[in-house]
Amino acid sequence: MTFAPTRRPSSERLPPAHEHSLVPVGMATILPEAARHVRQLESELLSYFHRYGYDEIILPTFEYFDVLAPGLEPALLEKSYKIVDRTTGRILLLRPDVTAQIARTVAMGMLGTRLPLRLSYRATVFRYEPEHVGRDRELFQVGAELIGADDPSADCEIIMLMIECLRQIGLSSFKISLGHVGFFKGLLVRAGLSTEGRKRAEQAAARKDFPWLGEILSQERVGKRASQAILDALELCGKAEVLLKGRALARGEQPLVQALDRLAQVYDSLGAMGLQDAVLLDLGEFREFEYYDGIVFDVFTDGIGIELGGGGRYDRLIGRFGRDMPSTGFALNVDRIFRGLNLVDTTQAMTSAILVVGPTTLTKELISVTRQLRQAGARVIQRTVAASERDLVGAAADAGLEAEVPTTIVLGADRINRGHVTVLQYQRHTRNGRIGAPPHKKTMSLRDLLASLSTDREGVS
Amino acid sequence: MTFAPTRRPSSERLPPAHEHSLVPVGMATILPEAARHVRQLESELLSYFHRYGYDEIILPTFEYFDVLAPGLEPALLEKSYKIVDRTTGRILLLRPDVTAQIARTVAMGMLGTRLPLRLSYRATVFRYEPEHVGRDRELFQVGAELIGADDPSADCEIIMLMIECLRQIGLSSFKISLGHVGFFKGLLVRAGLSTEGRKRAEQAAARKDFPWLGEILSQERVGKRASQAILDALELCGKAEVLLKGRALARGEQPLVQALDRLAQVYDSLGAMGLQDAVLLDLGEFREFEYYDGIVFDVFTDGIGIELGGGGRYDRLIGRFGRDMPSTGFALNVDRIFRGLNLVDTTQAMTSAILVVGPTTLTKELISVTRQLRQAGARVIQRTVAASERDLVGAAADAGLEAEVPTTIVLGADRINRGHVTVLQYQRHTRNGRIGAPPHKKTMSLRDLLASLSTDREGVS
Repeated sequence: MTFAPTRRPSSERLPPAHEHSLVPVGMATILPEAARHVRQLESELLSYFHRYGYDEIILPTFEYFDVLAPGLEPALLEKSYKIVDRTTGRILLLRPDVTAQIARTVAMGMLGTRLPLRLSYRATVFRYEPEHVGRDRELFQVGAELIGADDPSADCEIIMLMIECLRQIGLSSFKISLGHVGFFKGLLVRAGLSTEGRKRAEQAAARKDFPWLGEILSQERVGKRASQAILDALELCGKAEVLLKGRALARGEQPLVQALDRLAQVYDSLGAMGLQDAVLLDLGEFREFEYYDGIVFDVFTDGIGIELGGGGRYDRLIGRFGRDMPSTGFALNVDRIFRGLNLVDTTQAMTSAILVVGPTTLTKELISVTRQLRQAGARVIQRTVAASERDLVGAAADAGLEAEVPTTIVLGADRINRGHVTVLQYQRHTRNGRIGAPPHKKTMSLRDLLASLSTDREGVS
Repeated sequence: MTFAPTRRPSSERLPPAHEHSLVPVGMATILPEAARHVRQLESELLSYFHRYGYDEIILPTFEYFDVLAPGLEPALLEKSYKIVDRTTGRILLLRPDVTAQIARTVAMGMLGTRLPLRLSYRATVFRYEPEHVGRDRELFQVGAELIGADDPSADCEIIMLMIECLRQIGLSSFKISLGHVGFFKGLLVRAGLSTEGRKRAEQAAARKDFPWLGEILSQERVGKRASQAILDALELCGKAEVLLKGRALARGEQPLVQALDRLAQVYDSLGAMGLQDAVLLDLGEFREFEYYDGIVFDVFTDGIGIELGGGGRYDRLIGRFGRDMPSTGFALNVDRIFRGLNLVDTTQAMTSAILVVGPTTLTKELISVTRQLRQAGARVIQRTVAASERDLVGAAADAGLEAEVPTTIVLGADRINRGHVTVLQYQRHTRNGRIGAPPHKKTMSLRDLLASLSTDREGVS
């Protein structure tokens, strides 16, 4: 995940990325203000997942290649970062995907036998992406998996969870593109493609690469009519009418009809949940991962040309690790959601802290005051100045300017009211970070200070 | 980070780790209940750091070897996982340490020019550790760095931050071992060791390996008295008397006296803050990282044979990346703190969710009820059953047993009061997860249900 500040660092010392970069390309550097949002986003999503009954699991960053390989298609394995383990000589993989890891973990019986299992995660996944694709190599994901449930209501639960979470974090204009891989796969089988040809056609479909798909179909000597049906299917996208058109293409063929029936069921249930607005049916919906074998979905929003996340049903994935278990789930890309939310929050800038300044002789009091302020919820930076400092308030004001804080509290400056503190309040910072007018100065008791703080906070919340 | 459930998985299918492990050795698998605690710990610590004015930064998992190398000693570089970058052919490093990364980032000017900078992080670091050492290879760390401040009050701020955070998360019996690397280094210089000999002696000191240190001293032909002073220094540990004994060993030598003066200043200030109880002076305190060049500290607790974390001053580290900047900071190992806290919290087990069951014909109502329950703060799993189900309450009770939830709410079971729900309440789960008595059943309006929920929660909080 990379944010604008990293891509265009202010420092002149950085050569362009393609010359001799100091920071690996496509990797995450998230500077403080963005980091705060990203972490908040992550933890909000995980807390929603929790409220829906999903428990977080933390999985290793590495996996043994030979162990995880059955869960991942060759293309993804090729994109994975690999290391030879010094102890065993085996090949380690930096996880390129979490779902396969969870499938491995579940199949190993590490999560007990109670089903269905509801699991969630926040994790970094690593994929080698050629530079020009512009995708990132270190992806921050959060996700949820519903394991051991095969009925349509499980599909609905997962899709609803995703929709509701995205709404709750404030993403409004997004669309779910909902399909069923069985439909397209069924068309390919009916058209008589070879196993190899089907695989390539599926890849072309996932990328919506029509010319490539056309080429594959002609190489596989698929007839004109069947080819047209396949290409048409890829473009069948919209509301309920898609199902009708799909049925026409299916011509009563069982696997195709079954896929459409399931899709209709899920679509109707989402309708009953009042969620149909967010959903578009898409018979060409095909995810990058070949382990999906039923209902699949992607989520998109305006202005981000790539999906924010997606998921689907993977009934046979866990079985590849030794234990069959119908399951469904989704993953969201935190970086893209962050960009989709277009957060520009300047109300809680980094500098909204209070600086507390006191002479070294009052260290104990200083600690006590800062502790109380922090307990009252404030963000506090403390600083002691030499006890010999004559102009304590002047020194504190300088420190406040330097730290760019709106409020500085000075201990020991009021020689008459020993228990009082001096509060220096600056005008709001101007855009370029400079402060115009001199600070407003007042003296108050610590109790009044704490009281005013809690009033401020109540006003805010 | 590895927790007991991973080390001793319940499944019989797992061969012992040294045979043909399915999960990489020394890597993190944290099962749901532990994961909840770990994440909570992480976010509490980061939120305390925030309240002290420290802003989180997120850094890339990879670094270019040639870029980061100046910040890390050869031993740590050797322990690092390395990958050849396919695009550039350069060597990538999985970060073995965050402080060096932050130094690199600061020196590049990515964080602006305002000083001091207060930064925090939560990150995974990777180190190859020989299996028998028993340390983990994937470490979860949180940390804080105070950059651009060289006075003793900065040392105190960082140490105080660490102490207060550890106390606030509930760790009570821990000790900070506080030293100054300048003292021991000064002794080695005075004894006339070669550069190479000093380096090895420092490594031996960091590991408190007395026999090895003795060997090095004799190889370096250090006289008996000087050798004894060096070995004695390593064992100088305790309260204020350590400083006196140190002064005797220093015999007025400037670098040694300066180190002791600084140490005394920091120790006294911590005393003024009321924190001396947690601190032990240790003139043999020596951290693994050679970039520390001033005050250093480690934190230990009973029952964990290895430090929970530590840190210190690194005035010349950022300079190695091109820009001198006196700094200090610390890192905590989240896994070890988690173990130190010995959390056994069964009050909020994974199963404390409410199950809401309704017939498919009432899907809309079901969604509405679950949404309200979740907004009221409950953890809710929802399930629809076939509308044809005759014994709706019986089916719901079965579902509740299966999901092991204490409360199941049924919609549409009360045919007289259409707006009412049926609540099935089970006795508390027994130790082996089974429920003895049949559930208690009552009918109530949704409003009353929500009201009772918020009363329950107030009672808890």
